[in-house]
Amino acid sequence: MAGNDYVTAFAPASIGNVAVGYDMLGLAISGAGDRVSARRVPSKGVSIAEVRGLDGNIHAILSNDSAENTASVAAAALWEAAGQSGGLELIVRKGVPLQSGMGSSSASAVAGVVAANALLDAPLDIEALLPFALQGEQVASAGMHADNVAPSLLGGLVLCPPALLPRMIRLPTPAGLSSVLLHPELLVNTAESRKKLARGYSMEQWLTQQGYLAGFMAGIATNDIELIRECLQDVIIEPQRISAVPCFQAVKDAALQAGALGSSLSGSGPSLFALCASGIAAKVAIAMEQACRGCGYECQSWVSSLAAEGAHMENAA
Amino acid sequence: MAGNDYVTAFAPASIGNVAVGYDMLGLAISGAGDRVSARRVPSKGVSIAEVRGLDGNIHAILSNDSAENTASVAAAALWEAAGQSGGLELIVRKGVPLQSGMGSSSASAVAGVVAANALLDAPLDIEALLPFALQGEQVASAGMHADNVAPSLLGGLVLCPPALLPRMIRLPTPAGLSSVLLHPELLVNTAESRKKLARGYSMEQWLTQQGYLAGFMAGIATNDIELIRECLQDVIIEPQRISAVPCFQAVKDAALQAGALGSSLSGSGPSLFALCASGIAAKVAIAMEQACRGCGYECQSWVSSLAAEGAHMENAA
Repeated sequence: MAGNDYVTAFAPASIGNVAVGYDMLGLAISGAGDRVSARRVPSKGVSIAEVRGLDGNIHAILSNDSAENTASVAAAALWEAAGQSGGLELIVRKGVPLQSGMGSSSASAVAGVVAANALLDAPLDIEALLPFALQGEQVASAGMHADNVAPSLLGGLVLCPPALLPRMIRLPTPAGLSSVLLHPELLVNTAESRKKLARGYSMEQWLTQQGYLAGFMAGIATNDIELIRECLQDVIIEPQRISAVPCFQAVKDAALQAGALGSSLSGSGPSLFALCASGIAAKVAIAMEQACRGCGYECQSWVSSLAAEGAHMENAA
Repeated sequence: MAGNDYVTAFAPASIGNVAVGYDMLGLAISGAGDRVSARRVPSKGVSIAEVRGLDGNIHAILSNDSAENTASVAAAALWEAAGQSGGLELIVRKGVPLQSGMGSSSASAVAGVVAANALLDAPLDIEALLPFALQGEQVASAGMHADNVAPSLLGGLVLCPPALLPRMIRLPTPAGLSSVLLHPELLVNTAESRKKLARGYSMEQWLTQQGYLAGFMAGIATNDIELIRECLQDVIIEPQRISAVPCFQAVKDAALQAGALGSSLSGSGPSLFALCASGIAAKVAIAMEQACRGCGYECQSWVSSLAAEGAHMENAA
């Protein structure tokens, strides 16, 4: 492990908030994620050799400044906490579009910390990596919220309320349900989006929203699909964000029309997600794509089981 | 059933809010409740023949004005909705102290509606009685909240968010846990107490509280006692109400010191509850009573399984 060979970790993209659980509920997806390769080097510190895009070319936007990249910041936090000698050199391969609402910064942070962990003299359990991944995530996103990092790390549907961190709770995922994630080619900056949210809310607002969250929790615990459908709503955050996503209403309507249980923004958008019965997921994805293109935005979609796999090691590249 | 004989229903007292779920979580208790006996009469309408206290005497405070009593209002709502001919005469026997935070008005409403239901030509399922019991409850308590009516009706621990009414969800109740309910001899008017609550809350406040609620839901679904302990907190409502209950801090501290997982007001107080391992429930109850008497208030306590029985018919008195 301590030789010149790179180890490579994959961490999936994820759906933040999942409508009902702002800053505390996240869902991993399949088919999109970041890869970070790491190798030990004699010199102290964590550096990035290169950042590449999906096409294999050097990334058009992200530099290899290790102080700015969530992968290197997360990896360095772990490496230093473990008191390792020497340092790390990373290669980051971005599979998650930037500013997409798909947890791009978290996927890099998680892949970085999981790769670094594999090179520790005494690797930690994956749950113990959360605080380090969050340190990486903070470079990109204001506030200490784990709703992308936690599902990217553990997979599936994860509850991670800020007040309980670093505790995170892998929730049961009803069989027969899938997620559809649609990414329209638009940019939304999460940190900026968060600053625009109202700070104060009425008792009626918070009781309504926490009622939906509690009902959703009961629904997934008992596989009560109608209860999940009734509760999969965001009455507080979504209305404040949709003006930044012109195709929002058309895509959401299309998802519901196609039979989805619910649909909302993924994180701060512009991506939208829907939950639906697995048998109609392909149909829902097509409907969402058509609606998005009808609004004039090119797009891409991913269909995943609710139990999508979390971060894991891959063979070295 | 349609003769002159009274049928009698019992409905238990209950713990409202259960710390984490203001207006949406309630827990039935054992050993305290109201009884309503009903018989058909030829004349239209629902009247109350008498209201008696635990001692068997005519109740010192409650009159037999059927427009003011939650039992008769609830029973009349059901009776009229069912289009029954004739009317009902009720006898109300109060086992739950008034203005105690133990769901006194709800216990009467539920017992009233369950007794009336037994005399319908076509009785409804017990879940269908909620809207009628709530109509009774509204006579006594401002706002449409079901966190006492729902557990009194169904028993056990019930989730009943205002946004999902009339849906209510009986939650799993971890084996090996008990509730302790302590009633200090103090009065708190629920409707007045509700009016004093702040209307606005910061995002941090509601995210913290809904995080505890979601964590509590996960904890009871998986029997994770440490998670229940961590989450059984009310950071929003409790601080606004404890000034009305001078013994609050001493009794709560005593419960926690004796090993309870958590303790808070029951409803708007003055009663307090604690959840704890069943093996130490008697010890927790004694510690709470001693602390309460140390503050100069006489008191009474009840220990119940979390799966305490809901409303049910009894033999006619």
